[in-house]
Amino acid sequence: MAMEGYRGFLGLLVSALLVGFLSVIFTLIWALHYREGLGWDGTGLEFNWHPVLLVTGFVFIQGIAIIVYRLPWTWKCSKLLMKSIHAGLNSVAAILAIIAMVAVFDYHNAGNIPNMYSLHSWIGLIAVILYFLQLLLGFLVFLLPYAPLSLRAVLMPIHVYSGLLIFGTVIATALMGLTEKLFFVLKNPSYSSFPPEGIFTNTLGLLILLFGALIFWIVTRPQWKRPKEPNPDFLHPNGGTTEGVDGSMAINSGNNTDKSDLELNNEVAARKRNFTLDDAGQRSTM
Amino acid sequence: MAMEGYRGFLGLLVSALLVGFLSVIFTLIWALHYREGLGWDGTGLEFNWHPVLLVTGFVFIQGIAIIVYRLPWTWKCSKLLMKSIHAGLNSVAAILAIIAMVAVFDYHNAGNIPNMYSLHSWIGLIAVILYFLQLLLGFLVFLLPYAPLSLRAVLMPIHVYSGLLIFGTVIATALMGLTEKLFFVLKNPSYSSFPPEGIFTNTLGLLILLFGALIFWIVTRPQWKRPKEPNPDFLHPNGGTTEGVDGSMAINSGNNTDKSDLELNNEVAARKRNFTLDDAGQRSTM
Repeated sequence: MAMEGYRGFLGLLVSALLVGFLSVIFTLIWALHYREGLGWDGTGLEFNWHPVLLVTGFVFIQGIAIIVYRLPWTWKCSKLLMKSIHAGLNSVAAILAIIAMVAVFDYHNAGNIPNMYSLHSWIGLIAVILYFLQLLLGFLVFLLPYAPLSLRAVLMPIHVYSGLLIFGTVIATALMGLTEKLFFVLKNPSYSSFPPEGIFTNTLGLLILLFGALIFWIVTRPQWKRPKEPNPDFLHPNGGTTEGVDGSMAINSGNNTDKSDLELNNEVAARKRNFTLDDAGQRSTM
Repeated sequence: MAMEGYRGFLGLLVSALLVGFLSVIFTLIWALHYREGLGWDGTGLEFNWHPVLLVTGFVFIQGIAIIVYRLPWTWKCSKLLMKSIHAGLNSVAAILAIIAMVAVFDYHNAGNIPNMYSLHSWIGLIAVILYFLQLLLGFLVFLLPYAPLSLRAVLMPIHVYSGLLIFGTVIATALMGLTEKLFFVLKNPSYSSFPPEGIFTNTLGLLILLFGALIFWIVTRPQWKRPKEPNPDFLHPNGGTTEGVDGSMAINSGNNTDKSDLELNNEVAARKRNFTLDDAGQRSTM
């Protein structure tokens, strides 16, 4: 990575960390200053863990987990280590999401409020279920050393796609949750009279959206991908420190800008994008 | 494109069209059957144009505009024609979005309801402004024949990224809007008692999300990209029927699956991803 690209990456990474951190701080201030605070007693104090844990785990930590392969100073670390960090961060986010769901169900049940009637709850539950399936699949196929490379090559595009889809869905669900809560609690003065809590929490919503936009940009730049391992994988196909299936992703906009001259000079090669199992098995050894 | 890939594309395209069409139909049924109907008189009838026009234009038509380059039977059409269709569909969506905004402001003003206090309104307005900037930039840089290829090459990744970001933001905003409206209007029986309108409109929200997921999948498959033009662009750099800057996008997951063997065999080439202006200017002529 050239120095200029490295500085650009650092600037965006620091921005993402700052905006993500601010989102968590804003959620805490919302719970502690504008709402009742935090507790575990079936009241609003327990409910407030719901946004705090979800913005911390499902938004911030999940976002960092998505871009962890792109940190240039980790490129000398083994792929197995980086996959463990990726899986570890996502596992922490999953545990926080479960506690956050327990908090809101507890709160509802203690106050005889029905569960699972809102669009927020429907989409949120779907996101949590998909997240756990994604985590399980990732663990079995990509972290454990048993899956054949051909299977990894087939599943990797799906893993990457569904990871980003779930992250985007989580952000949308967070924004719906803020909307719901503000209409619930801002009665006097009402949300529509622009009270400080409304403006503050709208700003939190913008921060969450901006964090998602930054992560999406960082993870789709082709020039910030982790380089492929130098050692051919077929020498030790079941794990170790090298990994043929590349877990990063990039929006491939403009063939002309991120392909080699060699490829551009070869029309057959340039059009050779129809992906078959056999191809994947062989190419993943490179 | 191999026959198998073509069938897979057709299946997903038909699914996306079906789900997008269903979303529009559901929104119409919501407005006409569950709500007061449609009109232009400052009452709820006028408000109801807001969801109907936005789901039609900003969700469905924008989604189709995003994948229009990927229809294989258009690959023999000129790039200029396809760009005109892309711009035309997005212009229709923009006009519908403006009418939809007028409808809700009219409705608010007629009923002395404040404007622009909710998170939905903040993010929705940002999305509309970004959408118009995107449309203007796309028109000036990519449709008109004056912009140099180097500028197009620099701006294309940003155009692609912000297009998808705006589309995702629009879907999140639609889900927040449904949430708001359902909590406003479902009082007796309340939203929390699972009335038919609540379940119906939650289902509409799921359809909108599913439509977004299908468009996102279709637009990020590398094998469904429009092929590059056979004629080198430097022969007629300012437009005509060929275009060196590729407007489609693909999640580039797994280098090994969508790169040519030539490139894989050349480590220098494979790492040659640091994109510079000079490179872009030259490569975009291929």
